[in-house]
Amino acid sequence: MQVTMCPERAIMEHVTSKWGVLVLQALFDGASWRFSDLRRELEVVSEKMLTQTLRTLERDGFVHREVHPVIPPHVEYTLTPLGKGAASHLVALASWIAANQPEVTQAQEHYDGS
Amino acid sequence: MQVTMCPERAIMEHVTSKWGVLVLQALFDGASWRFSDLRRELEVVSEKMLTQTLRTLERDGFVHREVHPVIPPHVEYTLTPLGKGAASHLVALASWIAANQPEVTQAQEHYDGS
Repeated sequence: MQVTMCPERAIMEHVTSKWGVLVLQALFDGASWRFSDLRRELEVVSEKMLTQTLRTLERDGFVHREVHPVIPPHVEYTLTPLGKGAASHLVALASWIAANQPEVTQAQEHYDGS
Repeated sequence: MQVTMCPERAIMEHVTSKWGVLVLQALFDGASWRFSDLRRELEVVSEKMLTQTLRTLERDGFVHREVHPVIPPHVEYTLTPLGKGAASHLVALASWIAANQPEVTQAQEHYDGS
């Protein structure tokens, strides 16, 4: 299988980045999230890292950034339909992992003991 | 959606790591791969990085490492049934990305121009 392609490989890296995976899953339920709530929910230590992740996903057309012109202004993030398509595969993978985690943990224990 | 769980989060990081994604996809067709062939196919610069990735995936029970006792010995890697399950979600995501890459590229151009 040919896997060394571009720009697909770059998009794959955005979607599967450490924080990309978590942001896309968090937004999947359709709710809009404020930056500070996302940061707390995902336990993101670095504010800069979350900012960069959201910017990359916005640039790819996966995340919509809505600025509400109130005082003080606040910003909310939602998934676009395109982002929902990408995120659905991560949610499916996360469900698969949750279902198979006992088997993976067993394999890890076997590996560590051998 | 609750996404801050362990050990599922750790398994997700293994499966979606930069090289984990590519290794699992490459092995998905069922063929067995030699280390050197995988390294060439995936254009992995760092031998150590590929070694670590394969070891992590082997420990999780996703990859089977077969040592052939010939002279010189050679080692082949295949997916286990468990690994095939995990990899199938990455293959589905990669297909989705390939199909939607034009729309993502268009979004990127729009973002960069705005």
